Amino acid sequence: MQVDQSVLMRQDAGAVVRLTLNDPGRFNALSDEMILALSVEIAALGKRPDVRVVVIAAAGKAFCAGHDLRQMQAGRADADGGQERFAALFAQCGAMMQSLSALPQIVIAEVQGVATAAGCQLVASCDMAVAADTARFGVNGVNLGLFCSTPMVALTRKVPASVAMEMLTTGEFILAPRAREVGLINRVVAADALRAATDALAGVVSGKLGTALRLGKAAFWAQQELPVGPAYEVAARAMVDNMMHPDTAEGIDAFLEKRPAKWAADS
Amino acid sequence: MQVDQSVLMRQDAGAVVRLTLNDPGRFNALSDEMILALSVEIAALGKRPDVRVVVIAAAGKAFCAGHDLRQMQAGRADADGGQERFAALFAQCGAMMQSLSALPQIVIAEVQGVATAAGCQLVASCDMAVAADTARFGVNGVNLGLFCSTPMVALTRKVPASVAMEMLTTGEFILAPRAREVGLINRVVAADALRAATDALAGVVSGKLGTALRLGKAAFWAQQELPVGPAYEVAARAMVDNMMHPDTAEGIDAFLEKRPAKWAADS
Amino acid sequence: MQVDQSVLMRQDAGAVVRLTLNDPGRFNALSDEMILALSVEIAALGKRPDVRVVVIAAAGKAFCAGHDLRQMQAGRADADGGQERFAALFAQCGAMMQSLSALPQIVIAEVQGVATAAGCQLVASCDMAVAADTARFGVNGVNLGLFCSTPMVALTRKVPASVAMEMLTTGEFILAPRAREVGLINRVVAADALRAATDALAGVVSGKLGTALRLGKAAFWAQQELPVGPAYEVAARAMVDNMMHPDTAEGIDAFLEKRPAKWAADS
Repeated sequence: MQVDQSVLMRQDAGAVVRLTLNDPGRFNALSDEMILALSVEIAALGKRPDVRVVVIAAAGKAFCAGHDLRQMQAGRADADGGQERFAALFAQCGAMMQSLSALPQIVIAEVQGVATAAGCQLVASCDMAVAADTARFGVNGVNLGLFCSTPMVALTRKVPASVAMEMLTTGEFILAPRAREVGLINRVVAADALRAATDALAGVVSGKLGTALRLGKAAFWAQQELPVGPAYEVAARAMVDNMMHPDTAEGIDAFLEKRPAKWAADS
Repeated sequence: MQVDQSVLMRQDAGAVVRLTLNDPGRFNALSDEMILALSVEIAALGKRPDVRVVVIAAAGKAFCAGHDLRQMQAGRADADGGQERFAALFAQCGAMMQSLSALPQIVIAEVQGVATAAGCQLVASCDMAVAADTARFGVNGVNLGLFCSTPMVALTRKVPASVAMEMLTTGEFILAPRAREVGLINRVVAADALRAATDALAGVVSGKLGTALRLGKAAFWAQQELPVGPAYEVAARAMVDNMMHPDTAEGIDAFLEKRPAKWAADS
Repeated sequence: MQVDQSVLMRQDAGAVVRLTLNDPGRFNALSDEMILALSVEIAALGKRPDVRVVVIAAAGKAFCAGHDLRQMQAGRADADGGQERFAALFAQCGAMMQSLSALPQIVIAEVQGVATAAGCQLVASCDMAVAADTARFGVNGVNLGLFCSTPMVALTRKVPASVAMEMLTTGEFILAPRAREVGLINRVVAADALRAATDALAGVVSGKLGTALRLGKAAFWAQQELPVGPAYEVAARAMVDNMMHPDTAEGIDAFLEKRPAKWAADS
């Protein structure tokens, strides 16, 4: 399959890259094209030390409606009823979601509208999320007879078990303020202030030392699934590596001398 | 020991089965008889694909006061001071609690009154819980010199560590609104609206496709304790299995065609 | 290195020991001296069955400002640029933090002021925390180019991932009420009521049976990182051991007979 660049726009602005899901006619569904386009862009961003923050936004009314159901149903015409194709789809989609945690950049979802099923998974797979008060979140595949099992992997690593279970089994939506309360997202603002709020958060984070963000984010997700002892070993290694960077030496000196740090532009 | 059916009532209503702890004179304590009756009913429900939701409710003022302390103290007359008997009791009770997560049905606690110690564990071991605003929750064995160690296994998988630690070491109760805030329960209603609220939640969930609920719930608790990578493998397998079910094919078709799904009655 | 007792005060009051970080001129930084003094006191407390609660408080305006940055920067003069010294520092500090969970006593942080970086880690490493409404919490090393990787191990075991990630990448503070909302601390009171609030909590907890607290706390942190099955095995063993203690037998008897328990003074 060729990469269809029309479904995903990329805008570079200094240390911040903005990816915009751009298939509003399909509510930005995670079609084969969209998953491929995202995977390709994410792989490329992995090699960009000049970028410190990635924003994932969406065009149109919906943020992302999950998998492309028409495309999935078409797979049933295969000799095996679609089984192999479905397995490949969930493997690719899961790999794409996990690649967001593996990125050296901090990834922020900007959610302007409805985020359902794998669309909600995409939000939960970002490091942070900012949402308009008009956004809604659901893992409602169960309403069609398809339990949102893969979305729940990301969801249950952000929200309490009882909240995830209720969303998954009732198919009901939660609104943005509730989504923040339960830990799915970080900030809620009025719809017309959304872009400014994302830019503000991205601006604060992208002003930090790139090396610190990279080492810290990698340690964050690695230690998260370890027992405390091994988690401390991972984190201590990250701290030492971070300390050995010349810009960190300068950053601490600057703090002690109450002056702004002079960091290399690319670190 | 023979099963004493009087301590646990079962009512079948379509796809919803309601179990009622019915030993109000002992505050529905988890006596040997109650644990056995629950274990037997849960094992039987495991073989009932026609049932999609199990409600665990209670008769009388208390939901469940935890273990039967008089029965436990009687064990001290044994030659070993009760050690073997206590070990057997906690093993049986823990197995019963874990069997709730292993059930193919979604399990909802309906909490009308006080839920203490293993009674609080029972609430935390259900997939979801609805409570009256008169309900209270405590793991207060510490007040008698018996730290609620087994209840804390279920509790700490629902609520934050700091909340669990405070409840366990102070022996203090939390009220229903706080219990919802911290993720122990899902919904709080006025006492006279409790049954209706449980029925409403059970009704929504039992209207979903049984296969989807079964596959999803099994994947939920399995992936919860795995690192992200293996968790995605478990979840992806559940998704593929779910997709291959004819009623899921029909459910998605119906959604795309904006008509109600025609599902087999038993799926 | 000799233990410098001046940086850490200890006050014994019955079953409660109060440790006070006493280096206000350095904002109670976790200097080599402070880490050593804490490690020595914690090791000694591990052999004090008469103590049931340890309070960690601080003198001056700040609770604890994290590592001693001047001391760290001095290490850069070493032949290896400080690498070995930094590794030793984070290993010692991490061991000290983990020794708080390993203590047989319940450990309560009393936070009167700002707790940043490893200072915030110290709060998160205690079993519980009480804070003045003037307290603030941050893991803001990222502002200097040093991501708070070791503090995040303790932090992410108390608060949701999204909250931790935002604090770590923005370097922003959260206030005490928000810290309670997200599970970092347990109670928030007016500044002039802080000592009384800590004493009240310490008083409630230290009134419990020491054996129950010891067995329960050890089981708490052990089961927390295990899958449910093994977690129940650990907890069940703790319950049996707890039941076999004569004071627990007396505690349950007293409860059943509606009279105060007569416990041995040292249990």
